[in-house]
Amino acid sequence: MDFKSYIRDVPDFPKQGILFKDITPLLQDYKALTSAADALIENLKKGSIDKVVGMESRGFIFGPMLADRLEAGFVPVRKPGKLPYKTLRETYDLEYAKDTLEIHVDGISKGDRVLIHDDVLATGGTALATTKLVEKLGAIIVQCNFLVELSFLNGREKIKPLEVKSLITY
Amino acid sequence: MDFKSYIRDVPDFPKQGILFKDITPLLQDYKALTSAADALIENLKKGSIDKVVGMESRGFIFGPMLADRLEAGFVPVRKPGKLPYKTLRETYDLEYAKDTLEIHVDGISKGDRVLIHDDVLATGGTALATTKLVEKLGAIIVQCNFLVELSFLNGREKIKPLEVKSLITY
Repeated sequence: MDFKSYIRDVPDFPKQGILFKDITPLLQDYKALTSAADALIENLKKGSIDKVVGMESRGFIFGPMLADRLEAGFVPVRKPGKLPYKTLRETYDLEYAKDTLEIHVDGISKGDRVLIHDDVLATGGTALATTKLVEKLGAIIVQCNFLVELSFLNGREKIKPLEVKSLITY
Repeated sequence: MDFKSYIRDVPDFPKQGILFKDITPLLQDYKALTSAADALIENLKKGSIDKVVGMESRGFIFGPMLADRLEAGFVPVRKPGKLPYKTLRETYDLEYAKDTLEIHVDGISKGDRVLIHDDVLATGGTALATTKLVEKLGAIIVQCNFLVELSFLNGREKIKPLEVKSLITY
């Protein structure tokens, strides 16, 4: 399936000069939605993953669909103050600021085999912070996958040597 | 399945005096996650729904899983400024403030049969605003479903006479 044909370019969003890749046309088409979920896990065996970790909030869209297909649990990574139970935190740099992500300490067990998923891999800051949280909990990261990769931002380099898979690359 | 046994009570979250119903233990258990998705759509036929609408951000977790099962597309309803394309907006009252939700104008077509999903039905403000957005786009709401209903907050009354289904009731 030509997934790229379901991505809409929105100029100057969220600010002037940025060409935003809008995934909603893909989500609202059942065949594209389900085919994208299938394609994201095509090289992973059912039962080979214990937990799929997805980042707030668009990582929540495909994350549970992938967990469903792989017979794994789903664990959300969220912005500070959103997860109600005990959390582990990781702070990371943005272009002109810092941001923090949290995971529940009981979301992942030592030795769990984990798939990390987000909708877009851009500079890799969010992905790197998430890999650190997952590794601090003693899990093994099997793959990081993304619906869209903005390869000109070199996010893939930031999470080396982890296995990275993306469905649509710009 | 006893879904209630997978919900964790967290006292005084997000503020003093509130007993928060934490759904993450259910999400991280594959059998509970997938059984909950199955149960949420058990009275809906495959092909009877054109679009599942889920509200940011926890409605994104089960919404696409339900769409997947029903062979429907998924349409996100988001907080202001998050959706990049042309949107319709609806403002609603919170306890001491107002909030706004948005939907893409092309997310739903006139006559679409829609399932609205969120993780929790509390006072019903978010649900009511979402039903208004969906109805303004000319769609037919078949059902509103929720993983958890806090029935003492009477949210169900607010979206009458729409069909409401919830898996876990307090």
